[in-house]
Amino acid sequence: MSEFQLIERFLACFLRPSLALGPGDDCALLRVPAGRELAVTTDAVVEGVHFSSAFSPEDIGHKALAVNLSDLAAMGAAPLAFQCALAFPPERARDIVRIGRGMAKLATSHDIQISGGNMTRASELSITITAMGLVKRGKALLRSGARPGDLLYVSGALGGAAAGLLPGAPPPLVRRQRRPLPQTSLGMELVGVASACIDVSDGLVQDLGHLLAASGVGGWLDAVPVEKGATREQALTGGEDYVLLFTVPPPRVKALEAATRADAHRPIAIGRIVAGEGLQNPPPGQRPGHDHFA
Amino acid sequence: MSEFQLIERFLACFLRPSLALGPGDDCALLRVPAGRELAVTTDAVVEGVHFSSAFSPEDIGHKALAVNLSDLAAMGAAPLAFQCALAFPPERARDIVRIGRGMAKLATSHDIQISGGNMTRASELSITITAMGLVKRGKALLRSGARPGDLLYVSGALGGAAAGLLPGAPPPLVRRQRRPLPQTSLGMELVGVASACIDVSDGLVQDLGHLLAASGVGGWLDAVPVEKGATREQALTGGEDYVLLFTVPPPRVKALEAATRADAHRPIAIGRIVAGEGLQNPPPGQRPGHDHFA
Repeated sequence: MSEFQLIERFLACFLRPSLALGPGDDCALLRVPAGRELAVTTDAVVEGVHFSSAFSPEDIGHKALAVNLSDLAAMGAAPLAFQCALAFPPERARDIVRIGRGMAKLATSHDIQISGGNMTRASELSITITAMGLVKRGKALLRSGARPGDLLYVSGALGGAAAGLLPGAPPPLVRRQRRPLPQTSLGMELVGVASACIDVSDGLVQDLGHLLAASGVGGWLDAVPVEKGATREQALTGGEDYVLLFTVPPPRVKALEAATRADAHRPIAIGRIVAGEGLQNPPPGQRPGHDHFA
Repeated sequence: MSEFQLIERFLACFLRPSLALGPGDDCALLRVPAGRELAVTTDAVVEGVHFSSAFSPEDIGHKALAVNLSDLAAMGAAPLAFQCALAFPPERARDIVRIGRGMAKLATSHDIQISGGNMTRASELSITITAMGLVKRGKALLRSGARPGDLLYVSGALGGAAAGLLPGAPPPLVRRQRRPLPQTSLGMELVGVASACIDVSDGLVQDLGHLLAASGVGGWLDAVPVEKGATREQALTGGEDYVLLFTVPPPRVKALEAATRADAHRPIAIGRIVAGEGLQNPPPGQRPGHDHFA
């Protein structure tokens, strides 16, 4: 099969795009309505680093897009379109359509369209996605908006994705690891309610650290919801749970309840923002989280 | 050095961005002015496939961005911002700042800002860039607008990049291969003048084939400008010259001259569009161009 036939078969997995211009020319063309900003994020998954041979091609396609959708969710952006760059050894060409199917199923359920991408030969399989979404101008959820007194929430139990990596892990935890569900609806509901937001990709302690540093505040952890079957350490530092971690000023707690009442992902209060710098009661003896080059 | 320190040192190569929100949060935020569309393209370079160990880190950074800017040029889009995903083995970490310097120099000269990206461990060095630009709504240069009677142009001599790959190639040809200069100014000048456009990345015969197929027309080649030191075969099928290949209806030839008078890259007439399907006088015995998986 030629490169162009492979591209055609991959694109055929997806719904026909309704963009100003979809894949096939030198660029795609996107329209951004007046009063909206474009949120843009890039994330890659590499075989042997982000996924093992235990992942099915459908799992890989799902997860590559999911981690990017989670970044859109963390900004409160509505998914719009994504670019997908595939790199793989020639003998993996047979998996490309199955990767496309796993990716397309998640794309359809999150209302995001494929706008283009790239295919190239490489010595290992990797997928690099740039996802784009729309958010009201000036209303995006930043990491930097937390203030002392704000309440701290996560939108789900933690540690399941890390526990799902272990041999013999029960299927629900394996699913947390291989098929994370980005919380894009919740992210949009938090616009105008949360003062700061980040998704938990590197681990609660590390991602909370990013939020606190960007906001120039301190944090206090009262409780951490641990996924059934996971350990407290996995919940604190495991990462890849792709829930949202966010802060809400006390006067907006009622608005939070109203905005998220119908959402499957319910906010769980875990602590609060205080004056200071960084987490004021760090769990003893924990690695802070994931570092690709440490 | 940790992943976050590496990211910091890489970003420090670039001018401070003036985007609505630059790198550092879950997403960047871009503004698209009313009446403009966003052009988006993704292209990757992989060690051993797109560049050899003869490339300096600065060359690699330059070329990774250049091939994307060339796609913006082919749409007539003004460069706006790009996302840069770097994947590399830990022992290449020392090259990352030099890659950033080569990339930043080209970014500055083409007025494009880094908006974000990703770094991950991998078994080989690769760079995947998604570049974004602005073009007047409905005015982008597509591959599909060529009509019989249009004149066919390229914006420079061909074959130099392929000749620059050979051992002992003279420095100007080596430079064509390692430091291609995307023709973004010319692309913008062609808006409202050219009826169709594509950049020559895979080879003249193959890229012309894409333009003809997208437009549903035939083509006739009268002449091919061969770069000094390159062969006719390299000019026809070598690829990577990153000049623009475009069509102009006869009534707009004067407008073409006026629009491009001050540009360093002058249009060279090479043939015309005719009725039919594909190139009507294909050069005998040539491979059509580059295919990563053939």
